[in-house]
Amino acid sequence: MSESLQLGQSVLAAQPFSALLGTELTRFESGHAELRIPIVDRLLQQHGFVHGGVLSYAADNALTFAGGSVLGPQVVTAEFKINYLRPALGESLIARAVVVHAGKNQAVCRCDIYAVDAQGERLCATAQGTITRLGQGPNPER
Amino acid sequence: MSESLQLGQSVLAAQPFSALLGTELTRFESGHAELRIPIVDRLLQQHGFVHGGVLSYAADNALTFAGGSVLGPQVVTAEFKINYLRPALGESLIARAVVVHAGKNQAVCRCDIYAVDAQGERLCATAQGTITRLGQGPNPER
Amino acid sequence: MSESLQLGQSVLAAQPFSALLGTELTRFESGHAELRIPIVDRLLQQHGFVHGGVLSYAADNALTFAGGSVLGPQVVTAEFKINYLRPALGESLIARAVVVHAGKNQAVCRCDIYAVDAQGERLCATAQGTITRLGQGPNPER
Amino acid sequence: MSESLQLGQSVLAAQPFSALLGTELTRFESGHAELRIPIVDRLLQQHGFVHGGVLSYAADNALTFAGGSVLGPQVVTAEFKINYLRPALGESLIARAVVVHAGKNQAVCRCDIYAVDAQGERLCATAQGTITRLGQGPNPER
Repeated sequence: MSESLQLGQSVLAAQPFSALLGTELTRFESGHAELRIPIVDRLLQQHGFVHGGVLSYAADNALTFAGGSVLGPQVVTAEFKINYLRPALGESLIARAVVVHAGKNQAVCRCDIYAVDAQGERLCATAQGTITRLGQGPNPER
Repeated sequence: MSESLQLGQSVLAAQPFSALLGTELTRFESGHAELRIPIVDRLLQQHGFVHGGVLSYAADNALTFAGGSVLGPQVVTAEFKINYLRPALGESLIARAVVVHAGKNQAVCRCDIYAVDAQGERLCATAQGTITRLGQGPNPER
Repeated sequence: MSESLQLGQSVLAAQPFSALLGTELTRFESGHAELRIPIVDRLLQQHGFVHGGVLSYAADNALTFAGGSVLGPQVVTAEFKINYLRPALGESLIARAVVVHAGKNQAVCRCDIYAVDAQGERLCATAQGTITRLGQGPNPER
Repeated sequence: MSESLQLGQSVLAAQPFSALLGTELTRFESGHAELRIPIVDRLLQQHGFVHGGVLSYAADNALTFAGGSVLGPQVVTAEFKINYLRPALGESLIARAVVVHAGKNQAVCRCDIYAVDAQGERLCATAQGTITRLGQGPNPER
């Protein structure tokens, strides 16, 4: 395992909310991040699909890791937008984020979220957002 | 308690992910929805603030309830965008969503998310999105 | 007329694209900006409504002025999102933008766009975005 | 020239605002659309770069054409989000949009906007949005 991936996993392990959701970081290198979340009952909504809030969490977090892969670990998601494409059903979610453009203090990233089952991967949501180095965003105090 | 609020609470109670997060529906009437989430350790990220994914979940869900208050219970969030304004710290989150415009099959809604402590409420994030009646969105199969 | 409004109007007058569209700045004070655009044939699309691109221009520009009212004149729009609510028809457009939250280098703003005719104002689009001081955004070179 | 491209060009030619901006449709086939706009002085802002409103117009229109390539000509952009990445300078803009996911009544599309000069193409903005068949969106009356 790369040093970079180990570093990323230690950051993820320090997020209690990610531990609650069972998230794993499966790729973390310059310009790329990938998270996986096992689909279990407590992540669902009332129709039996994965709750949209789980998908938006996955987008938020994968975008932050992608941005952090080029800006360093002290980053936050300043904003993002997500379009839901299909209900998410299956064994696990994969969120794959890439850096589209990076400056010194901010990076614009995209993230595709797939539901995985025995038949393969299906795109369920797609997101785009801005990652900011701490102290550079709309809230310099944080 | 109004019938409408009871109906909304029964929908929320049927969402396992909302039960996991301890979400309560505290307002649900035509054009308005309000959710509250107690801030507990397992909702945090590595800096001790509420995880951005919790805020995006709160936005997603409050937007859906606001849309559902005018479109009926069979709705999903088609898309939304969120800007994070300040780190969220305190005793609880309040997500207040309103309908900006509603048509027959879709509603555009906004949501403000506050962190609450003894000093009062502080705006932490703001979101805007589209709620769609089931069968009318980009994925008529869901 | 206030000094602040005069300053804002001189910035607007220096934008050739705004001159092409006939845009006027009718309010510019801390936290608020208002633009007006006369609806003329060359701003329309194929169905006879104002082109969505005119509405997105109005949102972009009003958001920038609102952000500039608190951050100073050296600002750009880093990103925004717009929802179209109704076709825009009438005599003129009004774009009203407000600052939702401002830090030292960035401001998050919202903008509502109305079409005006003899009957009054009708909300046609709503937008939300981030304004950044020059040199602080994703592209420090600009 | 393909029949499809001719059809698309006739739609574009019926948009007075696109004629004002000198927009050309250079690709239009299932899932793809490309617009080109010559950069001339009247499209600039006060710093000498292409006005952000021109980029947002290009995104809006390219997204609509991409959506229309799979949904048919009676479509509108329901919403989109754009991130500005670099100031746009050069001889022309190219907006390339693709369909990410299409249902019966809506399509989610992405658009990259490049500034072109003798050195080549530079990515200046990236957008993501929803295209809706007329009569299916938030405003069934339009």
